[in-house]
Amino acid sequence: MSEISIIGAGGFTGKELLGLLARHPKYKAVHVTSDKLAGKSLSEVFPDLVSPKDLIFKKHEDEVPKGSLVVLAVPNDASLELTPKFLDKGHKVIDLSGVYRLHNQEKFETNYKLKHTSFSLTDKAVFGIPEIFRDRLKGADFVSNPGCFSTSVILALYFLGNLRKEIKPRIVADCKSGISGAGGRVEDGGFSFNGVYENFRAYKILSHQHEPEIQEYCYAGSGLPEPEILFVPHLLPVYRGILSTIYLEANSENLPFLETLAENSKSEPFIRIRKTPEEIDLAKVQNTNFLDISLRQRGKNITIVSALDNLMKGAASQALQNINLMLNETETLGLLP
Amino acid sequence: MSEISIIGAGGFTGKELLGLLARHPKYKAVHVTSDKLAGKSLSEVFPDLVSPKDLIFKKHEDEVPKGSLVVLAVPNDASLELTPKFLDKGHKVIDLSGVYRLHNQEKFETNYKLKHTSFSLTDKAVFGIPEIFRDRLKGADFVSNPGCFSTSVILALYFLGNLRKEIKPRIVADCKSGISGAGGRVEDGGFSFNGVYENFRAYKILSHQHEPEIQEYCYAGSGLPEPEILFVPHLLPVYRGILSTIYLEANSENLPFLETLAENSKSEPFIRIRKTPEEIDLAKVQNTNFLDISLRQRGKNITIVSALDNLMKGAASQALQNINLMLNETETLGLLP
Amino acid sequence: MSEISIIGAGGFTGKELLGLLARHPKYKAVHVTSDKLAGKSLSEVFPDLVSPKDLIFKKHEDEVPKGSLVVLAVPNDASLELTPKFLDKGHKVIDLSGVYRLHNQEKFETNYKLKHTSFSLTDKAVFGIPEIFRDRLKGADFVSNPGCFSTSVILALYFLGNLRKEIKPRIVADCKSGISGAGGRVEDGGFSFNGVYENFRAYKILSHQHEPEIQEYCYAGSGLPEPEILFVPHLLPVYRGILSTIYLEANSENLPFLETLAENSKSEPFIRIRKTPEEIDLAKVQNTNFLDISLRQRGKNITIVSALDNLMKGAASQALQNINLMLNETETLGLLP
Amino acid sequence: MSEISIIGAGGFTGKELLGLLARHPKYKAVHVTSDKLAGKSLSEVFPDLVSPKDLIFKKHEDEVPKGSLVVLAVPNDASLELTPKFLDKGHKVIDLSGVYRLHNQEKFETNYKLKHTSFSLTDKAVFGIPEIFRDRLKGADFVSNPGCFSTSVILALYFLGNLRKEIKPRIVADCKSGISGAGGRVEDGGFSFNGVYENFRAYKILSHQHEPEIQEYCYAGSGLPEPEILFVPHLLPVYRGILSTIYLEANSENLPFLETLAENSKSEPFIRIRKTPEEIDLAKVQNTNFLDISLRQRGKNITIVSALDNLMKGAASQALQNINLMLNETETLGLLP
Repeated sequence: MSEISIIGAGGFTGKELLGLLARHPKYKAVHVTSDKLAGKSLSEVFPDLVSPKDLIFKKHEDEVPKGSLVVLAVPNDASLELTPKFLDKGHKVIDLSGVYRLHNQEKFETNYKLKHTSFSLTDKAVFGIPEIFRDRLKGADFVSNPGCFSTSVILALYFLGNLRKEIKPRIVADCKSGISGAGGRVEDGGFSFNGVYENFRAYKILSHQHEPEIQEYCYAGSGLPEPEILFVPHLLPVYRGILSTIYLEANSENLPFLETLAENSKSEPFIRIRKTPEEIDLAKVQNTNFLDISLRQRGKNITIVSALDNLMKGAASQALQNINLMLNETETLGLLP
Repeated sequence: MSEISIIGAGGFTGKELLGLLARHPKYKAVHVTSDKLAGKSLSEVFPDLVSPKDLIFKKHEDEVPKGSLVVLAVPNDASLELTPKFLDKGHKVIDLSGVYRLHNQEKFETNYKLKHTSFSLTDKAVFGIPEIFRDRLKGADFVSNPGCFSTSVILALYFLGNLRKEIKPRIVADCKSGISGAGGRVEDGGFSFNGVYENFRAYKILSHQHEPEIQEYCYAGSGLPEPEILFVPHLLPVYRGILSTIYLEANSENLPFLETLAENSKSEPFIRIRKTPEEIDLAKVQNTNFLDISLRQRGKNITIVSALDNLMKGAASQALQNINLMLNETETLGLLP
Repeated sequence: MSEISIIGAGGFTGKELLGLLARHPKYKAVHVTSDKLAGKSLSEVFPDLVSPKDLIFKKHEDEVPKGSLVVLAVPNDASLELTPKFLDKGHKVIDLSGVYRLHNQEKFETNYKLKHTSFSLTDKAVFGIPEIFRDRLKGADFVSNPGCFSTSVILALYFLGNLRKEIKPRIVADCKSGISGAGGRVEDGGFSFNGVYENFRAYKILSHQHEPEIQEYCYAGSGLPEPEILFVPHLLPVYRGILSTIYLEANSENLPFLETLAENSKSEPFIRIRKTPEEIDLAKVQNTNFLDISLRQRGKNITIVSALDNLMKGAASQALQNINLMLNETETLGLLP
Repeated sequence: MSEISIIGAGGFTGKELLGLLARHPKYKAVHVTSDKLAGKSLSEVFPDLVSPKDLIFKKHEDEVPKGSLVVLAVPNDASLELTPKFLDKGHKVIDLSGVYRLHNQEKFETNYKLKHTSFSLTDKAVFGIPEIFRDRLKGADFVSNPGCFSTSVILALYFLGNLRKEIKPRIVADCKSGISGAGGRVEDGGFSFNGVYENFRAYKILSHQHEPEIQEYCYAGSGLPEPEILFVPHLLPVYRGILSTIYLEANSENLPFLETLAENSKSEPFIRIRKTPEEIDLAKVQNTNFLDISLRQRGKNITIVSALDNLMKGAASQALQNINLMLNETETLGLLP
């Protein structure tokens, strides 16, 4: 059994990861932290989670078991402080914050409104989308897990492969997320019922910090310059799930977009290409590591729809997929039977 | 008191209109029909509606009170059959179906999958958006009430006025609607709880029948050729409300989009221009005749957000606004105190 | 036009009352207060409310227009402080807090965990259920509006009339309320989405402050000693509405319970007796001043189901019904067409 | 690996059981039927389920793999027809319908409005609540899995043990269920969004078919005559979970109810006694096999609150707990790590 430490285990993502680990054949959670919940037991905080061993929440700064792989599920500023420490102590680290994803320091600092204190580490971090960086993730010591919105958009574009050359570099990504993907924190109670129920709104319009991340990675491997991304997130009155509607304009008609998507992802265990985009909905991906993608083509216009569970393929289960690679285990272990 | 007959009063929109009429100082509903509900009383079917007089549902073909203004809230095929009859008998008619909105018969028949049997009537119908066609609506005998999605997009673009010349004629309209705007019928039970709750999806992607309507009217008065509209509706797990996110590209930067919106709509009683698009949400327009609009500008890109209540400004209260004009009453009567 | 001042107008109930007054033919809101919202305008705080005049929120202590009827929609401690002041200045007052409902000071102080500083006023307050105290409410200067749960249970029992002698004085009242009736405040954001959505729980089990109020008034006029009430409120993941399931045991079988309910309430404009309790649901009473009641009888057991809108018959519209009586207007004015 | 056949696998419960089996270390689903879904694959029907092998739905009458344990998740009439056939062929059978639970044929036929055609089988069926009938379930060939409401009430009373002698035999069980426990079927779309969302109601008041089942089993082992049960189910606008509020009257005050509950269930892996009934909610038991119980005592009155997931401890996971016993495996296998 490999040992896993989760720093910041009291949030939505920490909970999901604990649930996944409880059923994993080769890993076990051995250390969980939360400054707010320190002293409480796992079963007290998450009574609907069944864990092999009832761990007690520690403080972030408490000693972490030697040799354990460290998962950081803390806010950006906390990650800036903690990640270098754990790396220095020789832990394998996977960081779920946005701190080590962007390779442009200025863009990071502008978008995150945060001074970067360990920017050089970014070059050591592998961006944790296995479908793109599988080879580098195998055995990696430091992984930066991607954002939930980002994953849903980057992969939908990535699998277009060579056809990315044939689309205009101005891409609209209209994304809709349940409350657990929109920044509410479980420890704080998150969004008010009143503000979300029977309601809907856009937020951080053309100014969300995931936009440059989409921009940097969606054309990975294509040799193309980064496209312009127009990213608008919206808040759905649901608990979990992201559906992204992506608008592209091609240079010519009749290009084989759906076929290309299907061809480029055919060996991927967690990518499902649907025949029509109307088939895609949140219910089909909730509680799974799947990303569903399809599209509609009309003349030069292509509308892609993609969906994933923001807490799973958008966070915890993608982290587990990465951990499997980091520890040289089968990529699907604990995710597929 | 002017008398109003509602043909097809058993649906979502019929109910809303009955609620508005019950409080209206000058109109009263005198005749309500529903083939399914014939014989039942209004208070039995809508126990949460308080009506001055407890009407009994009649059949569609039953005799309509002479001189009453007729509201048609029936499916498209029923409107094709009934509208000419009521016009022939000399009733003022406002039709809420999509049958008399498009001036291109082929587009109508393709989009509605329906043979048009009285296309010449379209030229006699005034399209019922008062903010655009107020003068022609005053005293009009025949009005075609617009679609709910359409209203939210058309007006957001219409109020850009001359700036419409400065935008590229390829417009993305990513719209999200509660279930009452998405085709479910109250008489049939509509959507299943299971398919909608904790779920979200797009439907009729680039193939919704409201797309040509948006296209025909959004550039009204501009002298410009119709733009290309990329319209994708989505189904929200809420009861009422539409929020539309509209993506434009301008020919140059720094054009005064928000100021223009505000200037062009400044005398409109039901249009509210918000300072930022993040302020806009469904809760602020539900149960009102308001349409809220704002936008974010970044370089040449403009993202407009608009919101309305699909049953109100998107259907029943806009119909009442039109009826006020048709009957030469104050436009806001029964809608504003 | 009679003038109405609302102290504490920024909450759920204040908003509802403002909506009712905006459409009332004889009253107008002239003064609204909220310590938190002072300085903001009504249309800014409640953009979905349409008011004849856009009032600005004042502080609680600001001068109230002379001669205006004062509605207090403030917490219990604030009411203790403010009510005597407004009465002293000669205003008619209707208080929506729980402070002047109970005639047993000890019970009040125990249940409300609050020292009563003006208990003698309780004797001057008329308890605001028109169906019971109509005669005393006419022209009254001081009314204590009842609780929302209380109204749903008290009236269901009150209309049993003489049959109350035939039931065992141990009554179970299992009540379920939407979040607006369960203590969340709109100004504070109220309950978290996370804690309410896809969830359900009981609270203040056998210890809710409305229990003694039900006990004191449910046998009004019967000459019987107060029964034992076992009151358990529950929190529904809905916005508005209360449904109460009340369990009685009769002394003998075959007593005419439903007939008696119907007979005793037959002239009441806002009480609707349904043939079967399965017909009763929240949707039928939401946004209305109706209280729906029915029951099932099996041997000596009677299960009553009643439903109302906690913000309407449970608060704002019942207050308006009372105000109509206090001002010697028609009781249904502004509530029925 | 033991092989499991699921007859009627297309419903809510079938889906849950398939999810549990996919992760079970010793069982695998080998045969799934649904007359409606025959020919479709599991991954097509339940895209959010991850199965080791993508089974194809068969017809109910198709040949079942020899030696497989048969789970019947079909309506009552189908169970009446199919159960005897599978038993005759030598399969171990666990039936999830209500057909073999009641030992009084007349009560069955009255409550289920169904003629019983194989009543003698009832004596061979072990009632599938392991906490009560563990010994008889070990190695059993035929198990009748209990109802979801029933489980939540029976166990709450059962664990009172000897104190059941001290309570009056008239028990109110006011139960609230999410839509998946209230009879909606996933194949049919179930309840309409419109009828459930922002709504709440009681149904089958004092006439639900689970009432006699509660009555027969809640006093199991006590030697006491069956008590009178007043059972009223309600429909919550949530997907899953049942919370039951149970009202008892004791013969005397100060009896140790909570302590007795705790003592009698202390070795049970799936029963959690909470210190206060306010701690209990649906979220804590959803997706688990736990039943949470607590109570409030006031004088002679006791109000018990219990909660479970109707699809899990109320159906599929309790079935798996029973299957573990039938196959002489560890009772918690596949349910606890």
